[in-house]
Amino acid sequence: MTVSNDLDLNAMLADTEAEILRVVGPRDDATAGVYEMIRYHLGLDGSDGPRGKRIRPLLGLLAYASIAGDHHAALPGAAAVELGHNFSLVHDDIEDGDVERRHRATLWAIHGVPQAINTGDLIFSLSRVALHRLTDLGFSDAKVLRLMRLYDETCVALCEGQYIDIATSAQDEPMTVELYFDMIGRKTAALIAASIEAGALLATDDDEVIARYRRFGWSLGLAFQLNDDLLGIWGEEQKTGKVPTDVVRHKKTLPVLYAFEHATPGDRERLAVLHAQPDPSDAQVGEIVAILERTGAQAFTRSEARRHRDAALAELDGLAVVDPAAREKLAGIMRAVISA
Amino acid sequence: MTVSNDLDLNAMLADTEAEILRVVGPRDDATAGVYEMIRYHLGLDGSDGPRGKRIRPLLGLLAYASIAGDHHAALPGAAAVELGHNFSLVHDDIEDGDVERRHRATLWAIHGVPQAINTGDLIFSLSRVALHRLTDLGFSDAKVLRLMRLYDETCVALCEGQYIDIATSAQDEPMTVELYFDMIGRKTAALIAASIEAGALLATDDDEVIARYRRFGWSLGLAFQLNDDLLGIWGEEQKTGKVPTDVVRHKKTLPVLYAFEHATPGDRERLAVLHAQPDPSDAQVGEIVAILERTGAQAFTRSEARRHRDAALAELDGLAVVDPAAREKLAGIMRAVISA
Repeated sequence: MTVSNDLDLNAMLADTEAEILRVVGPRDDATAGVYEMIRYHLGLDGSDGPRGKRIRPLLGLLAYASIAGDHHAALPGAAAVELGHNFSLVHDDIEDGDVERRHRATLWAIHGVPQAINTGDLIFSLSRVALHRLTDLGFSDAKVLRLMRLYDETCVALCEGQYIDIATSAQDEPMTVELYFDMIGRKTAALIAASIEAGALLATDDDEVIARYRRFGWSLGLAFQLNDDLLGIWGEEQKTGKVPTDVVRHKKTLPVLYAFEHATPGDRERLAVLHAQPDPSDAQVGEIVAILERTGAQAFTRSEARRHRDAALAELDGLAVVDPAAREKLAGIMRAVISA
Repeated sequence: MTVSNDLDLNAMLADTEAEILRVVGPRDDATAGVYEMIRYHLGLDGSDGPRGKRIRPLLGLLAYASIAGDHHAALPGAAAVELGHNFSLVHDDIEDGDVERRHRATLWAIHGVPQAINTGDLIFSLSRVALHRLTDLGFSDAKVLRLMRLYDETCVALCEGQYIDIATSAQDEPMTVELYFDMIGRKTAALIAASIEAGALLATDDDEVIARYRRFGWSLGLAFQLNDDLLGIWGEEQKTGKVPTDVVRHKKTLPVLYAFEHATPGDRERLAVLHAQPDPSDAQVGEIVAILERTGAQAFTRSEARRHRDAALAELDGLAVVDPAAREKLAGIMRAVISA
């Protein structure tokens, strides 16, 4: 591989989308409709619709490029993680009853639950098909198989995390902070860590380097989720007068769970009452946020987010073999996605 | 591999279930519940519940044993196809709104749609994990990858077939007989053919032999489905006075679709009216069956089922390298599953 200084994120994005289109293009007349549904969901239907940030493939390509230079050979891996992420979004939208994503109607809202379940399954299947092109690009069978094993175990973790999420939603008691970290590890950090590990895995045989990239990704994934938790309550949108969506929607977030564990008995009781409201008023939401703040839930979440971000940065600094430009881009993505 | 005359189907079944249990056993406390759900669905929860016939893994193991002798090395492949089949059943039950399967409540009926979608996804992921044990059993990376490519493309075909099924259910016009064959090829024949091809693939490098096993499986799969179509209308249960379930439930079957294409204009019109009844009376169902019979739909379906069964038998006869005992068992399974 030649080392390239051309770490243009827009080019990586365009290449990733072209790679995805290789596997989600129409195959025949009888099934053209379902591939159209997939391209619609991915924002690749030519409508210039919103497409998601493609964080996972970009992180993977940068990890690869930081070791090997040119990113092109890693594109099938990038396509696979983005498709894997999107299969889970299609199913999550059904599971959560969400009728909109990225300001467009979700697949199940348009085509019904049966068709959307099946389309998610097809995206999942296609994510594997994408990986086989690594063989055509010259990677050894051993390498491709190792990557697939990583991907397969990551998908298991994703589903396990989702199981914990759904199962605890049906319970009266809020989940513990400890279980929450377990859950977001599987639901969020696992796929981000795997995306980055996959990039490293394709670029080097050095297990120590690969392990370091994985640790970097894992910390980054946790920081990413905790940052999201903060933004959902204390983000820019909230500052400009909107009510904290995550609180209104009863989303499980670290601040709320921390408050349930650490609030005074009186606050805890009040929080339980407010949190049980199916459609809380602005005043009630304000009361919840006040409890979170006086319990130290905001401060705790912020310090946890920083701790994991700093751990990720430390791993990034320790990456001996990286192309400095790629390292800078990785740090840049970190800054972009971890703002709180 | 040593050639073994021990082609005990019950032993193969027990070995397959033990192999499946290797990947669906509990992993940790936080996720024990979802693995329990999986074992319940598979009939492997120790309740001695009904377990499904495990046709696909048995066909795969017999195909393998017919070339290589002892079946044990092929068990991870057998586990994978059975898990793959069952992931699709879990999702089908949601898509079809079925509250019972094998006389037990379906997963979604017990745990709700979100949890059941996710459990299906986990079974899908675990089916891949199962395949990686082939590497531990000594198969070359190239062999394992080739098997995975087959499995991945088969999953794509399964979802495509399901898409056609759901999409045509929403249309006013009945689907054509031609599209029906396309659909059951993807929905049913593809996985049965792949199960058998996988067995052959693991046992030999001879592409001609592998292709013949695949053709055998493809014809067997089509015959299997058409046989099912016949039994759903003219099977033993129906002879003993029960109404034809498939007709009552408006299932797409070849006899009905053939009748729509070949009935007289008057019969066709009447069939459309009757078929549009959400809950047809016994007399109306009887009228539908009478139209099917006088249109020649029963005779056509029976002759198609026989044609594909005979094609499968001819392929089976042409399999030069087989262990005669295994060939006899394969023919025996064919007789058992193709009775009409």
